[in-house]
This record gives sequence, C-alpha cells and structure tokens, in this order.
Amino acid sequence: MLEKRTPIQVDEAVRRVGRYKKQGDTEWVPLEDSLHRYLAEDVKADHDVPAFDRSPYDGFAIRARDSKTASRDNAVTFEVIDHIGAGAVSEKELGPYEAVRIMTGAQIPKGADAVVMLELTKTFSENGTDYMSVKRPFHAGDNISYQGEDAKKGSSLLKKGTKITPGVTALLATFGYASVPVVRKPVVGIIATGTELLHVSDPLEPGKIRNSNAAMVYAQIIEAGAVPLNLGKISDDFDDSYAAVKEAMKKTDFLITTGGVSVGDFDFLPDIYDKLGAEVLFNKVAMRPGSVTTVARADDMLLFGLSGNPSACYVGFTLFVKPMIQTWLLNEKPHSGWAEAVLTNDFPKPNPFTRFVRAFVYHKDGKMMASPVGLDKSSSVTSLAEANAFILLPGGTRGYEAGMTVHALLIRDENGSEWPWSILSRSSRS
Amino acid sequence: MLEKRTPIQVDEAVRRVGRYKKQGDTEWVPLEDSLHRYLAEDVKADHDVPAFDRSPYDGFAIRARDSKTASRDNAVTFEVIDHIGAGAVSEKELGPYEAVRIMTGAQIPKGADAVVMLELTKTFSENGTDYMSVKRPFHAGDNISYQGEDAKKGSSLLKKGTKITPGVTALLATFGYASVPVVRKPVVGIIATGTELLHVSDPLEPGKIRNSNAAMVYAQIIEAGAVPLNLGKISDDFDDSYAAVKEAMKKTDFLITTGGVSVGDFDFLPDIYDKLGAEVLFNKVAMRPGSVTTVARADDMLLFGLSGNPSACYVGFTLFVKPMIQTWLLNEKPHSGWAEAVLTNDFPKPNPFTRFVRAFVYHKDGKMMASPVGLDKSSSVTSLAEANAFILLPGGTRGYEAGMTVHALLIRDENGSEWPWSILSRSSRS
Repeated sequence: MLEKRTPIQVDEAVRRVGRYKKQGDTEWVPLEDSLHRYLAEDVKADHDVPAFDRSPYDGFAIRARDSKTASRDNAVTFEVIDHIGAGAVSEKELGPYEAVRIMTGAQIPKGADAVVMLELTKTFSENGTDYMSVKRPFHAGDNISYQGEDAKKGSSLLKKGTKITPGVTALLATFGYASVPVVRKPVVGIIATGTELLHVSDPLEPGKIRNSNAAMVYAQIIEAGAVPLNLGKISDDFDDSYAAVKEAMKKTDFLITTGGVSVGDFDFLPDIYDKLGAEVLFNKVAMRPGSVTTVARADDMLLFGLSGNPSACYVGFTLFVKPMIQTWLLNEKPHSGWAEAVLTNDFPKPNPFTRFVRAFVYHKDGKMMASPVGLDKSSSVTSLAEANAFILLPGGTRGYEAGMTVHALLIRDENGSEWPWSILSRSSRS
Repeated sequence: MLEKRTPIQVDEAVRRVGRYKKQGDTEWVPLEDSLHRYLAEDVKADHDVPAFDRSPYDGFAIRARDSKTASRDNAVTFEVIDHIGAGAVSEKELGPYEAVRIMTGAQIPKGADAVVMLELTKTFSENGTDYMSVKRPFHAGDNISYQGEDAKKGSSLLKKGTKITPGVTALLATFGYASVPVVRKPVVGIIATGTELLHVSDPLEPGKIRNSNAAMVYAQIIEAGAVPLNLGKISDDFDDSYAAVKEAMKKTDFLITTGGVSVGDFDFLPDIYDKLGAEVLFNKVAMRPGSVTTVARADDMLLFGLSGNPSACYVGFTLFVKPMIQTWLLNEKPHSGWAEAVLTNDFPKPNPFTRFVRAFVYHKDGKMMASPVGLDKSSSVTSLAEANAFILLPGGTRGYEAGMTVHALLIRDENGSEWPWSILSRSSRS
C-alpha cells in the first residue's frame, strides 16, 4: 500500500529541473515602468559618452599654454570673449589669452584645451570688456571630460538578462531608451491543497489553519520577477482536482501546488501527475525541510509540487522555482547567491540529510554572521518572517558549534549564482 | 560676485537633515498588494501557533507507553479506531493499544501522546478491522507539534516599520490579515534643471545630453519605498521656475531638484530657496562626488537640491533622501547598511574630502570584496549601472592599495543601519 520513494541529492534534483529551461520573449515597456525588469536585448552605445569634450565644472575654458607663466606673484589675464551655458555651443575659437566662460556640462569651445574652475579665478571689467585672471599654470587636458571617455560608441554596455536597477535606468535614459525591451514575465499559477486550509479572511476553526502558503508563494513569485496567479484551493474530489490542474496549465507558464505531494491518503498530486502522463523528475529529495518536494513535467511544462509546510515550501521555491523564473528572464546567474558565514550559535542536531536552517545574516567586523532564527521545524511560520538566509548544512555532518564557518544561501541577494554551488557538489554523496 | 560656501562634514549634514523627520499615516491594503510595504502597526499573535497540538507527519497517533516493549523481534499491534485527515478532528479517545490514522497537520486525538511516521508502520486488516504494528518504542511527545510552540497568543510578532517580505506575508496570512495596515507611501517630486537637458526620447543635439538623472531618481524613489512624481524640467525663467517649485510643494511630501545648485550663472535654486524663505541646512558638503548638494526646508518640507552629475546625484539621494523616506515608513534603521570589505584594486588618489567610490561588492572565501567600477568621475553614468555599493574613503586619507580593508555602503542592503555609521563619526574632522 505504501509507495516507496527513493530520495535524490539536492544537487542532482536542481540539475534535473534545470534541464527543462524555458526563456521568455520580448515586450517593450516605458522606461518608467522598467525598474526591476530584465533586459531582453544587449544594449550597445550608439554614441560616445560624453558625446563631446565637455567641462565638468563651472569656470573658464582657456588655452593651457597661455597660463604657463602664472604664479602667486604673477597673475595672467585673459579676455573673456564669450559666455556659454550648458547646452549651448560657442561659435568662437579661442586665440591667445582669450577665455570663454563655461558651465558644468557645456561643450569645450574650439581652441581651448583646459578649464579653470571658477573658484580659482578673479574677474573684472574694464571699458566694457570682461577679463579673468589666474595665479597658477594649467596643463592641456586639465578639467576636461573627453568625448567617449565614459563609453565609446559601439561598446557593449549591458547584457541581456541584466536586472534594471536605478543605475541601469540612468544608462538607458542616456542612450534614449524611452521604451525598453524587457523579457515578458512568466505567469506562475498557485494551487493550494489541503482539507485543513481556511481562507486568510476566515475565522479559525478546530483542527484547521489559514492558508499562509499561497500568500507566501504569491509574494515569492513577485520577488522572483514573475506574475503570480492565485488559482485557489483544490477540491477533495479527484476528478475535479485533475480538471483544475489541467485548466491551470493552460493559463500559466509554470504551475505550483502546495501540499498534497506526500504519501498520505488525501495526497492527490501523485495520481494527478500519473493521469497527466507527466514525467516525475523526482518525488523525494535528501533534504530537510522539504523532502517530499516533487517536480514533474507535462506538456513541456514544469509542475512544482511544493510541501504544505511553510518552511519546506519556502525552501522548495528557492531551490527549484526561483531559478527557473530567473532563467526565463535570461539571468545567467539564476540561482541564489551564497556566502561563507560565521555561525553565531550552536546547532547541535546531526544532519543525516542536507539541512536548510532559517537564519538571519548580517555583517560584523569584516565577516558575515549567520544566526539561526526561531524554531527549526518545517511547520514554523514565525521564523520565516525574520529569515534572510538559509544556512546550508551538508548531509552526513554532525552538529555545528558557534564560531564555525558555514555556508549561507542569501534569499534576496542580487548577485546570484551559477549552478553548482561548490558546497553542494562537495557534499553530494551517493 | 562669487558666493563663498563653507563645506560641512557628511556626518553633520546627515544629522541636520535627520532632525526634520516626518512619518506617514496608515492605510489598509489587501495582503496580496502588501509586498515590500512597511507595517504601520505592531502585529501580535491573537492565537497560539499551532492553535492545537498537531502532527507534523502522516502516520498514526498512539499512546507512547503502549509501544514500550516493541523491538525488531517484537512487533506491537494497535487497532486503528479512526482515520482523520488534516482539518478534521477525531471525536474518539484512544484506549490501550488503539491508534488513529492521522495526516500531516491534523489535530492529535484525545488520549494520544505520540505520532508514529507512516514509514515505520505495517498495516493489515482482519475480519473488517484495521491494525497497525510497530517495531520500536516511542516516547511521549514524539512527533507532536505542541500548541503555541511556534508563537504564544499575545506574543509580539512583528514591529511597525517592518518591511513586508514573503516570510512576513506568511505570518500575516496565518493571523488572518486579509487586509494589512501599512504606512502610506510619501510622494516625492522630481524637478530637473539644466538648459542642456533633452528628453529621453529626443535625438541628440550638439552640446546637449539626455536627462538621465530624472529617470534614475524616479527609480531610486520607487526602490526607497515611495511614489515618484516626475514634474518635468524647470524653465530658464526665474519667476516661472519659482512658481513651478511652489506648485510642486503642494503636491508632494518631499521635493527633489537635480542640478541648478552650483554657483554658475544659470543656477536658480539658491535664489528660489531665498525667495521661499527656506532655511538652507547646508549648501556644500565635504565629499566627492556631490559637494554642491543642498538641502533646504520651507513650509515644514524638505527640499533636496541634488547635483546635476549622475553619480553625485545618486550619492546625494542615498545619503539624504532615502533615509528620510525610510524614516517616513517607520523603519528604525533608515540608513543604508555597510560592511567592511577587501579592496580588490589599488585606488591611488588622495582623498582631501570623504570620497564615495562606485563599486561592485561580492562574497568570496568568507570575505566581502569591493571592486571599484569604471571611471571615478561624478559625470560617469556607465559605472552606476554596475555599482551595488559605494566604497567610503574618509577625508584626509591617502591612496588605498589592493588588499586593504575599506568600508562599503551597500546600496540595496535590507538590514539597514542606524546613524551614525561608526566609520563616518571616526572620520569627521573639524
């Protein structure tokens, strides 16, 4: 009666899922709506930046050689022949001992090869002519931002798959991207299973709990860069449940179910996968929490069967769903980043399987510190609120002591990581 | 003619701005729209979690003492008297050698004090009665999640000012927050100044540049948790500009201008502050880039005059605007977090003033590494796209060499920091 499941290692599970990557197509959105989207195309410089030699300061453009004899005791005087603001271009060309008043960002006039900051000059007028004097010499090139020094025309600026941050936005604006090619977000469906589940707005009832997983996964999907679609709770009837999953697959790019993947009598998912003709990539992973996590593939679509326990569900999403969303978005480092960290507390439990311990990480004295938070039970929901990392304890290890170095998986790290994490490859055992 | 400005230290500048903190009021939003908002109220547990003793596994609830004699050679057999799914409650009470089939998450039936995982049992039927046998003893409490072990009723779960992450969402769902009290986002206006500015959609013209600052600041405002309001470009006419600023102040909670704060002939902002009767908190900061950053206060409102140079503008936003937005959102650590990091490259320039060097930080071998990116000129826009940190080099220091420890200000760090950063207090000089 009881189905026997063979657990596979985390490393192998992630690799199996990663084989079925899909990538999104392109859509154009206004620049102001593009924050935190992912570029669908490489961005190259279509002009030099700066587009012309310009002044980084307010001051006077001069011919440096005219200032050669200037010193504290010997002011050199220039005639101010023009006065240009940023955005304007002087039509004059500087002759000997001539200067042009110039604003920050303005184009260097012809003949000039240096800019003197306003603070280092003295100005005066005589007979309707403006003059400026300096008391130190300048060299050709002083205070000039040269054309192309920031970016040369044709140079590669941003790779597709780049997440659009405010700094990227500035670059896109500079190159005239009022509209930006970004990857269409995948739609990720969420179906909850579990006869014990109440709606979030329901009053508590004996033996029941509110459906926190769907709300949590909904938020995780947004954070991973996709569009969540909450498809409600599956019914207790197998045929209805099967029909609901079939229908959901038509509306979504990925489908997540929470709960129902265990071996209990009310766990429909294995039978639904079966009836779909789905290929089950695995239905047991040698990890805690989340060992019952199942991933299947049907009609070229990945079905993620996450555990009904909140922390197990969170870990399953982080390991398997998020990287596939990030791959869809063309990110070349789709996995969560990790760092070595110093454990702040003893963690005495042995780890027959790879263990993911909810933790809060922070920087202190040049090191990253990792503190386990709250209870380490997969049913715990309070500790998830504090966690910003999972401490990864390889299978086959004994307890850990405060001060030992561990690996922390950083939940909202932006640098990301390629697979495999070296720590997992090392710990994979047959 | 030339106005003399006295620079103040970064530390002092941040403190002056921080004196005028304002905090937002409360609005209620649906849970699914609350991601990355900030809680306006403390959240306490209004019930125990778990709300009842429950089973973390599929299996059988038993009286542990009945299994005392069980061993590999001596199976102890229990009669299965009931069968309950998650969400259901058994009305039976266990007697000696009786068991109840129980699902993950289901309430422990009366009389039972342990749960045996399904995998450790053998089941059979005889004469219409179901039996289950075990081959090892269990202890009272084995595999039971006790009422309140995750959170006790009345305990404090989340403080106001907490950023809502997926883990926080799970907790809010558990406690029935279908609607969540969050802090109303402040509206932050952006006015650009500069005769050289083209719209992002405009073709390039001689001497002009596209307005990348407004787009960048727009994105920074969203990332900081506020609502940006792009109010376009100020005109070249003083009276029109003054009227535009006056009008903007009515529609916004904070107002940012980019450019126009220098001492150039087209820099209107100082005169506008003057006509507004604004108190100028400072108009020069001993830092690079961004020394001309100005903050003024008029009609109980902060006016941020950021530099027109992209990197200087970015730094000014990070140091002065973001903390005020985060304070409005009740975050008790409103400043950017920082960490000690190892410099990967020489940085030979001396630092007469506090310098913020755009950098990319990453984790390697238990350390955070900081690599300066691109040009270190305040006009550089390409390097901002790569930067996720600013290396903070205290004023009065000489060049730095690869391998030295520096302080990195983490742009999108979520842990945040209180003021003062110890590094800045140490480096503040009179």
